[in-house]
Parts: sequence; C-alpha cells; structure tokens
Amino acid sequence: MATLPPNMRLIANFLRRLPGVGEKSANRMAFYLLRLPEADLVEFAHAVSKLKETTKRCKVCKNLTEQETCSICEDSGRNTKVITVVEDVVDLLSFETGDIYEGLYHVLHGKIDPLNNIGPDDIFMESLFTRIKDNPVEELILATNLDMEGEATAVYVKNKVKEISPDTKVTRLAYGLPIGANLEYADYMTLKRAIQGRNEF
Amino acid sequence: MATLPPNMRLIANFLRRLPGVGEKSANRMAFYLLRLPEADLVEFAHAVSKLKETTKRCKVCKNLTEQETCSICEDSGRNTKVITVVEDVVDLLSFETGDIYEGLYHVLHGKIDPLNNIGPDDIFMESLFTRIKDNPVEELILATNLDMEGEATAVYVKNKVKEISPDTKVTRLAYGLPIGANLEYADYMTLKRAIQGRNEF
Repeated sequence: MATLPPNMRLIANFLRRLPGVGEKSANRMAFYLLRLPEADLVEFAHAVSKLKETTKRCKVCKNLTEQETCSICEDSGRNTKVITVVEDVVDLLSFETGDIYEGLYHVLHGKIDPLNNIGPDDIFMESLFTRIKDNPVEELILATNLDMEGEATAVYVKNKVKEISPDTKVTRLAYGLPIGANLEYADYMTLKRAIQGRNEF
Repeated sequence: MATLPPNMRLIANFLRRLPGVGEKSANRMAFYLLRLPEADLVEFAHAVSKLKETTKRCKVCKNLTEQETCSICEDSGRNTKVITVVEDVVDLLSFETGDIYEGLYHVLHGKIDPLNNIGPDDIFMESLFTRIKDNPVEELILATNLDMEGEATAVYVKNKVKEISPDTKVTRLAYGLPIGANLEYADYMTLKRAIQGRNEF
C-alpha cells in the first residue's frame, strides 16, 4: 500500500491530533498546504516552533500574552474595580469579541474537578485571592461554566472571597445561558444578556 | 477589544485558511497546540517549512513523492500493463488504502473545465500520452469523477489514446448502486446507470 510522501505524512499525522480533525480532513489539509505560497508556510512554521517559547501567562490575570502583563491588564481604559473569573482563555475571548465588558479578568486555567484529581491548588486560584487581598475590588463576576465542576468552582471562590474581602460583591452570570451550554460556543447576544442579568451569588 | 497574542493569532489566522476550519475551530486548534510537547511542534514546523521544497511530482505518473519517481512506480511487484487515470492524488490514495488495485496510475492534477479556462494543456495530459506512446499498455482505466468535467476529460483521453495506441483497451469505472445502499433512497441517475450497466447473474 502506497501512502503520502514522508513529509506530507508527518504533517497529516500531526494535523489529525488537532481537535475535530479526522484522517480524511487531515489529508485534505496537507494537500491544501502544498498549494499555499512558500512564504506563508515558512511564516506559519516559524510561529508554531516559537509558540511555547513566546506565549506566556500574564503575571496578573493569567491571560495569554507575549509580554509580562497582558493587553487587557495594560489597558488604562478598563474598569479595574471589576474582575470576571473564567475557566479558560477561550472564555475570555468570547467576552472580548463581543466588546460587552469593560472590567478585568482572572483566568483559572481549569476548574475544581475532584473526579480528575484537580483541586484549588492545581489551578490559578491562589493568585486570584492574593490579587483581591492586595487590591480589593468592588465586584467579582463568576463566569465559570454551568456544569457541576464550574458551579463547585464558583462556590469555592465565593466563600473564599467573602472571607478575604467581605465588601466585594460576588455575582454570577445570569441564567440567560442555556443549561449545558459551553461558554466558548455561546453567541454574543446570549453573553450580553448573561452579563446584564448577573445576580448576587 | 483584546485578542490572542501575536504568535497565536498568526497561527489561528493561518489555520482558518485550511478547508473546513472556521474561526472558533482555528482558535481551539491554536490553544491545543500550546499544550503539545515543544519537540512535536518543532518537528511539525520543520516539515511545513520544507514541504514545498521536498515534495515533488513523480516524473512518470505525477503522484507526489520526495524522490524522482514515486513508490508506486518504483514497486517492481505492480502490473505495469495497466494504468488508472485519476484527477487528484487523493483519488489515488482512496484506491491504495483499499489495496484493491495492482496496476500503475497517472495523476492529471485537475480536469478539463472550459468554464474555468482549464484545457488539456493545463493538466498533466500530454505526459500521459507520451507515456503510452513510449510504452503501450494493455488497459487504461478512466477513473475521473462522474461530473460533467470528469466525463469530458474521460472522453478526451479515450479519443486521444485510441489514436496513439489502438490496441489499448480503454475502460471506465463501473457506476451503479454503492454497496449497502437501499434502493428506496437511490437517486434516479444512479438507478439509471445501474440498469444500463446490469450484469448477467
């Protein structure tokens, strides 16, 4: 049985590892790459090989950045008195593409998930508490997902924050979000409703 | 509006150009890359940047290869008296994954398509005729697709080959009901072909 030439096979095998890509799609993508300009391939390849080296976590909010602090924390136009806690950077991006929120974020990079042995110390929870201790905020919006682990994470954060900074209002996104939905895939209007209708938690 | 860090954005924008990848999938893929081992990313990047340089067309059949001739043309176990003409390398791969064919191939890299200004000289047609002229084969199987352009290409090849090498048998893939198909759901054109091509049972 003949297959692709070695380099194309390596590329197709790699692409198959990406989420949502099967064998046939990976082959189609590899063939498509062959038709793109050499310069674009080289630029892309360079970015991929440098990706992990250049991309760091913001020292304040743990958002991804190539600097010490991310563009959101650096932005003087944002309301530093409100922090929204999200599980992942993709959730933050969903808010930002909608341009519906002016405060800051804190990215946990995960959620409390006892079944998979993920506790508060395995995600960026402590840095959130330190941040609030040093600079108490007016409001903390909990935007973890609505599944069991997301809810558990929200409850945990709320209890801790109430101890650390009793004056901080802790809110949760409104149930404008359909139950079982994933924040990453929510549409902009739904997210906007969810921000407007947030309730005391 | 904040977005991804520059390197990740470049990667996501590139991935969006691939067939079947939208904005959200491209972002997800970029985040996924961030979690892969550095060595894998570097290996993949290297393959991508060298792709166009290393991947050439076989000088005989125009299949993709990193050598002068491809692994199929090099394989002494294959029947050199039969050539199957396909539009693209993906079509060749479909035959090869099935391990159902022992002859050689000729990849046209396209089809005659007057509406898009693609004539016989724009695809690897002449090299097929030269090949047959130099080494007449017993059978030429036309495996271009069944659409209008694929049919036109098949007719064109057949007429030319009959001139060049009158003894070569020119055949076309059988068309009919796919295995496992339900008569009830078969379309009219397929049924028509299935009736026309019926065999003694």
